[in-house]
Amino acid sequence: MTYFADIPAIRYEGPQSDNPLAFRHYDAERVVLGKSMRDHLRWAVCYWHSFAWAGHDIFGAPTFERPWHPGTPATPELAQVKLDNAFDFFAKLGAPFYCFHDVDAMADHASIAAYSRELEAIADKMENKVAETGVQLLWGTANLFSHPRYAAGAATNPDPQIFAWAAHQVCSMLDVTHRLGGANYVLWGGREGYDTILNTNQAQELDQLGRFMAMVVEHKHKIGFDGAILIEPKPHEPTKHQYDRDTATVYGFLKRYGLEDEIQVNIEANHATLAGNTFEHEIATANALGIFGSIDINRGDPQNGWDTDQFPSNVPEMTLAMYHVLKGGGFSTGGFNFDAKLRRQSVDAEDLFHAHIGGVDVLAKALLNAAAIIKDGTLDRFVEDRYAGWSGSFGESILAGELTLAKAADHAVKSNSDPQPVSGRQEYLENLINRFV
Amino acid sequence: MTYFADIPAIRYEGPQSDNPLAFRHYDAERVVLGKSMRDHLRWAVCYWHSFAWAGHDIFGAPTFERPWHPGTPATPELAQVKLDNAFDFFAKLGAPFYCFHDVDAMADHASIAAYSRELEAIADKMENKVAETGVQLLWGTANLFSHPRYAAGAATNPDPQIFAWAAHQVCSMLDVTHRLGGANYVLWGGREGYDTILNTNQAQELDQLGRFMAMVVEHKHKIGFDGAILIEPKPHEPTKHQYDRDTATVYGFLKRYGLEDEIQVNIEANHATLAGNTFEHEIATANALGIFGSIDINRGDPQNGWDTDQFPSNVPEMTLAMYHVLKGGGFSTGGFNFDAKLRRQSVDAEDLFHAHIGGVDVLAKALLNAAAIIKDGTLDRFVEDRYAGWSGSFGESILAGELTLAKAADHAVKSNSDPQPVSGRQEYLENLINRFV
Amino acid sequence: MTYFADIPAIRYEGPQSDNPLAFRHYDAERVVLGKSMRDHLRWAVCYWHSFAWAGHDIFGAPTFERPWHPGTPATPELAQVKLDNAFDFFAKLGAPFYCFHDVDAMADHASIAAYSRELEAIADKMENKVAETGVQLLWGTANLFSHPRYAAGAATNPDPQIFAWAAHQVCSMLDVTHRLGGANYVLWGGREGYDTILNTNQAQELDQLGRFMAMVVEHKHKIGFDGAILIEPKPHEPTKHQYDRDTATVYGFLKRYGLEDEIQVNIEANHATLAGNTFEHEIATANALGIFGSIDINRGDPQNGWDTDQFPSNVPEMTLAMYHVLKGGGFSTGGFNFDAKLRRQSVDAEDLFHAHIGGVDVLAKALLNAAAIIKDGTLDRFVEDRYAGWSGSFGESILAGELTLAKAADHAVKSNSDPQPVSGRQEYLENLINRFV
Amino acid sequence: MTYFADIPAIRYEGPQSDNPLAFRHYDAERVVLGKSMRDHLRWAVCYWHSFAWAGHDIFGAPTFERPWHPGTPATPELAQVKLDNAFDFFAKLGAPFYCFHDVDAMADHASIAAYSRELEAIADKMENKVAETGVQLLWGTANLFSHPRYAAGAATNPDPQIFAWAAHQVCSMLDVTHRLGGANYVLWGGREGYDTILNTNQAQELDQLGRFMAMVVEHKHKIGFDGAILIEPKPHEPTKHQYDRDTATVYGFLKRYGLEDEIQVNIEANHATLAGNTFEHEIATANALGIFGSIDINRGDPQNGWDTDQFPSNVPEMTLAMYHVLKGGGFSTGGFNFDAKLRRQSVDAEDLFHAHIGGVDVLAKALLNAAAIIKDGTLDRFVEDRYAGWSGSFGESILAGELTLAKAADHAVKSNSDPQPVSGRQEYLENLINRFV
Ligand SMILES: [Co+2]
Ligand SMILES: [Co+2]
Ligand SMILES: [Co+2]
Ligand SMILES: [Co+2]
Ligand SMILES: [Co+2]
Ligand SMILES: [Co+2]
Ligand SMILES: [Co+2]
Ligand SMILES: [Co+2]
Repeated sequence: MTYFADIPAIRYEGPQSDNPLAFRHYDAERVVLGKSMRDHLRWAVCYWHSFAWAGHDIFGAPTFERPWHPGTPATPELAQVKLDNAFDFFAKLGAPFYCFHDVDAMADHASIAAYSRELEAIADKMENKVAETGVQLLWGTANLFSHPRYAAGAATNPDPQIFAWAAHQVCSMLDVTHRLGGANYVLWGGREGYDTILNTNQAQELDQLGRFMAMVVEHKHKIGFDGAILIEPKPHEPTKHQYDRDTATVYGFLKRYGLEDEIQVNIEANHATLAGNTFEHEIATANALGIFGSIDINRGDPQNGWDTDQFPSNVPEMTLAMYHVLKGGGFSTGGFNFDAKLRRQSVDAEDLFHAHIGGVDVLAKALLNAAAIIKDGTLDRFVEDRYAGWSGSFGESILAGELTLAKAADHAVKSNSDPQPVSGRQEYLENLINRFV
Repeated sequence: MTYFADIPAIRYEGPQSDNPLAFRHYDAERVVLGKSMRDHLRWAVCYWHSFAWAGHDIFGAPTFERPWHPGTPATPELAQVKLDNAFDFFAKLGAPFYCFHDVDAMADHASIAAYSRELEAIADKMENKVAETGVQLLWGTANLFSHPRYAAGAATNPDPQIFAWAAHQVCSMLDVTHRLGGANYVLWGGREGYDTILNTNQAQELDQLGRFMAMVVEHKHKIGFDGAILIEPKPHEPTKHQYDRDTATVYGFLKRYGLEDEIQVNIEANHATLAGNTFEHEIATANALGIFGSIDINRGDPQNGWDTDQFPSNVPEMTLAMYHVLKGGGFSTGGFNFDAKLRRQSVDAEDLFHAHIGGVDVLAKALLNAAAIIKDGTLDRFVEDRYAGWSGSFGESILAGELTLAKAADHAVKSNSDPQPVSGRQEYLENLINRFV
Repeated sequence: MTYFADIPAIRYEGPQSDNPLAFRHYDAERVVLGKSMRDHLRWAVCYWHSFAWAGHDIFGAPTFERPWHPGTPATPELAQVKLDNAFDFFAKLGAPFYCFHDVDAMADHASIAAYSRELEAIADKMENKVAETGVQLLWGTANLFSHPRYAAGAATNPDPQIFAWAAHQVCSMLDVTHRLGGANYVLWGGREGYDTILNTNQAQELDQLGRFMAMVVEHKHKIGFDGAILIEPKPHEPTKHQYDRDTATVYGFLKRYGLEDEIQVNIEANHATLAGNTFEHEIATANALGIFGSIDINRGDPQNGWDTDQFPSNVPEMTLAMYHVLKGGGFSTGGFNFDAKLRRQSVDAEDLFHAHIGGVDVLAKALLNAAAIIKDGTLDRFVEDRYAGWSGSFGESILAGELTLAKAADHAVKSNSDPQPVSGRQEYLENLINRFV
Repeated sequence: MTYFADIPAIRYEGPQSDNPLAFRHYDAERVVLGKSMRDHLRWAVCYWHSFAWAGHDIFGAPTFERPWHPGTPATPELAQVKLDNAFDFFAKLGAPFYCFHDVDAMADHASIAAYSRELEAIADKMENKVAETGVQLLWGTANLFSHPRYAAGAATNPDPQIFAWAAHQVCSMLDVTHRLGGANYVLWGGREGYDTILNTNQAQELDQLGRFMAMVVEHKHKIGFDGAILIEPKPHEPTKHQYDRDTATVYGFLKRYGLEDEIQVNIEANHATLAGNTFEHEIATANALGIFGSIDINRGDPQNGWDTDQFPSNVPEMTLAMYHVLKGGGFSTGGFNFDAKLRRQSVDAEDLFHAHIGGVDVLAKALLNAAAIIKDGTLDRFVEDRYAGWSGSFGESILAGELTLAKAADHAVKSNSDPQPVSGRQEYLENLINRFV
């Protein structure tokens, strides 16, 4: 008997249903553009927000009373209760995937030896759970930001002993992820930045981080892990400035250390908001730069400047994001991980269901909408036509590097060039999208 | 007789002076850390804000009544009046440098042929002015954002004919910059981004921009221009999103197109604000990535989200920026260009002097402060000591690539590692800085 | 023959239509909650963005080539062309209302006498147009921010002569608005704030503004204008800080000068964004404070910090705003004014239609959605139930002022009170809303 | 023996001192504008950040190891250790004042009866400490935001039983504050707002909050407390939206409930940043509206959108704030409370000293600068002259209400008025200020 005993398994009931504990759009087996919704979305529940966090915020104490949170320290017995509840939740929800940090699932530990022991212990149990339930690991990760030792960073710490501790956690969790059949391994460098530039050597820290990432990639190949290695960009919080600010910044970092073919991005919607980008921009940029990997799906609050990690709710916005996911070919190893947490007032078991059901339905509806836009074809044709000039001989000769600056200039002068602005039709296109959302 | 006839040449009078038309800190010949203030700062007046713009904003008509602004179109005669006034202003202020866009200085023109004719005409006159006054060109640039033809971008325009027009302007202005002895050539891609992602092919546009930049670099070498080619990052405005968002983003772009050894950044303080970065962060990042070039000095308004381009006024903030300029070795070809404009209510000739005098004094005082911090040495030693562990054998072996992830992890396990957080001393360092500002 | 000759009158064709020049949701006569869509929405086209502005931005020249924009100055003949085109546009679109500033519609003028003459001239012509077409004036206003005389404010100007000029414009336009049968008169204090607090006496300026508003109210009563007087809040731009920051701030201002029963707010969506509020918050706050008047409907860009004034496009967001409009009883004199402008690249006549059609359809769909939420009743019941405790005797005695602090405290102590948090059901409610959008 | 045993009492050593554990500007007895620095600044250490918080952030565990933080629950013995350490710290620092919330200082408690018992217990001990050390209470307050019962607000909670609990805390702490001779009582409504507007009745909640504040004021008079009652504005965090957004909003609230003569504002620098205002704006606005009370001095981070509560460090910015404090007549009951916390990496005892020493010195230097600006008189005269027109007969007749809108308009017409813009001299004034900072 788990905490969720009173909640039935969640089923698809269709758009007309007013049952709040049913899916209205997510019909796992429904085929869209040649693939089932399940295979398109590859959605995951995250362990940390839903099973490790207890409802505190920076101004307030925990509000959630869960059977696996009676106090500290977390014993192996409580870790087991949490595991049972988590997989019961995944199963009732019909979640195909989950994600977790090492410390989310394991018991507390006071030494590096105890860390290894407790991690192995929970990994064994989790392996059984995965086998029993069929819920797969979308990605694993190590928490390199909560423990006081990481206050000044993990890979970028001024102390190489802390780098080594971090190496141990990542090495261990990459092995565990591999053992559990995880599809990806994610690195979010929550403290890989600075609190004050006054005490910081940025070039030194970047080199440390570059080497760390290379070591992770080398280890992946050594152990034969064929999932993707992913970096999750975020501009700041908890640091004043995090080096992996956004997709374009991560790209520059990867190029600097020769890792652009080895590492991709795990884009979080809320982090895009924090970085001053739209979510769809981050996806489109990752596609353009060839480093799209996976998505942490949630939403931020444009009025509040911290990582609110709310569940997504706006279908038109999600449709634009989904359109770019589809245009990039969809996920290979990645998926949509709900890196989203309940509001602190949403204290009941059923709230955890409402939140995920609503989020999954937003994804499902957005998928249907985006597929309709693609099938319709008007948008794609418009964009193609807009750049048609670059498929002409003059445009091609420029892109092929056949023209010098002076030659291109001469071309304009000789033709007495006076090109006129052409409507970009933004409002028409916005209306067009609104036909499908 | 120019518009500035009543204003005397501006002189250094020392910190105690209460003469608003004198420098209190900027003493051009004073030697600081082995170089004169003039040679450290290499400051420039910009033509556009001070001589082309007439005080309009998006909600209001021009407020400045200048003899060179009686209406439109700007005739060659008015361009001459403007030129005479500009160089009289530079000379009275004792400015060592100036900067300009092609269209700032030249007469209006209705065709590409007229463009070339009028540009050559003003370049001839300007060449004489430079020779007469000794005021040097810090950098030239072409305006690829104001004319309607550039509404959808210049190099990134969907129409290759517009790319060619842009090539003509840049080719012409790079030649003019070379002829005038300019120390740098700057490209700010004001429209090189998108207004809506709906009609945009980002990969296509990035390739266009990459090719354009390569053509500029090739042309520079062809004509023997030995100044630097600089890109000025900005996140947005006038576009929704500009590709050259900030220094780290430009670095990724340069790496993508193999241009990181050919192009550097011209960092604008206000653009750092718009991008959500501190100004000193942008400089330190450019140093760390090896692409620091020059600076557009001004300030933004943290409460107002557009490019306010105000004159700098906060000495402690400027001191931090100057410290990083000095730590990076100071300018080689670059300098501090006042890309700053009067407030719209500052309608008098004297306001133009107040603004530049105050700005130059902020730079000069910041230089003195930053030099004192460096001479004192406490800050530099603190940072060096903080990373001392990385000069030990373990740290060095990591950075040298001699350790695998598993080996580094083993190191931690075997030593039963339990490293403790060490104070970052942020408040102590902030107090230390306050001793020098 | 106007500029719009090739565009047919816009008709309702239903949700399935793929005709971009038809309404899909706006069916003017359709009755919703007992009123026609036309009477619910009371939507208006604004003269300034669609007929006065020519596509310039702060970095670029005009891009629109309209027959009424051949250059400056604007002659009475051009004002007539503009008027004819504007009313042809209103009529083709089926707009029930329009809005304008004095200077949007009239010819240029070089003196206060000429101002009066030209304003009367255009008012006469406009009166005929209104009579001919049946398109009504939703509100009139005077432009107190574009002319250089208003650089330092209108009512808050340090020069009382400028206050008097402003009084003349407002007096004239209030008379014109009355004559034209306008339903409201709006004051947006675009320059009623400061550029720098250094030269500003805030108490003095607030008193000037308070007196000005009182004079407007007195004049309204004197002439028998029975429309509403409305203030449009905005936090900044073009000023550094505008006194009428947001709805709550305007309320405090009105209370200070005893005007809270005489003046209401005209809430602009984009200004809410700039002020760090949601649009629905501003409407709900105006309802709670009893000062809801009218709406300037558009959208801002959460990533760009200036007044982008785009056409609305997000139906779920608009649904929340519409819900609060309906909960407050809907408009009495107010309406939805499209204070929205084309993107600068949208240069064609048809773009003006796309923009308005899309915007009207967003309003219409949001109206249908919000009405469905209200008819369903679940949301309203939820909120009512949540506060049910305040209808009990203890709650009522508190609100009735019958309990002292000590008595209320005693109540808690004596009952050994230990109230538990109750779920706020945010995610459930977000899902509920998604059933209707 | 306390945790601070190794740190000597902090003394004034003058600007040339390089002793990081000495004041460089704060010379308590030095007389400035007729009052000692101590009496001008009335600065306070806050209990919560320095003695209750242990260095956690939303992504990380506590980093501070203090003798009074060995775990939970906090026993009366630990409360005593904390008290001893706190007053030793205050004394060594020479702090004239301190501030605290009920729960900062007292032992943990599991019932309302235990709350009362433990609060009285610590109040007794604190009373002795105040008598022994002479460190005075600047203000007391009750924490109505951390306990789960307040997740949905205190006074604005949907449950009136929670309102009563809050009444008990405030009643108790107002009594304690009175008993301890506190100079003010502060209310920060951290949860008095909403997380989602979907479940919120704003009018209801405002009425609850208005009644609560009135009850507090009534109680103050009943017990004869002659300190000020203060509201601390903040726009959001932890809520999505807090009703007491900023000074102008609080003013409107006070006017609505007739409390504008009874309650003033406690302005926090960081909250101004979060609200999109400058700090000096908030002070100047409070002066203009007659509700200036006290200050929570700290700084935010313009790039990071949460309450970073850093110690102040920028002297020029503080000088502008101090200038407005002095212009308003300085503090009566209020003072500068350091509502500022160490960075999470600043783990040592000495960091607590560095932080406060630096902060106090910033205040002291700003006081000297602001006094010099006032003595110089140029700025004040400039502003006075700028509005001189309003002291003429025309200006006075307007403000006296003697002119109708039509009469004021006639005045302009008859004089053929053509007033010209006058320079606002912003850059000149910025330079002027820089002479004194
Ligand atoms: Co994430
Ligand atoms: Co997040
Ligand atoms: Co610039
Ligand atoms: Co700029
Ligand atoms: Co508006
Ligand atoms: Co607007
Ligand atoms: Co505070
Ligand atoms: Co704070």
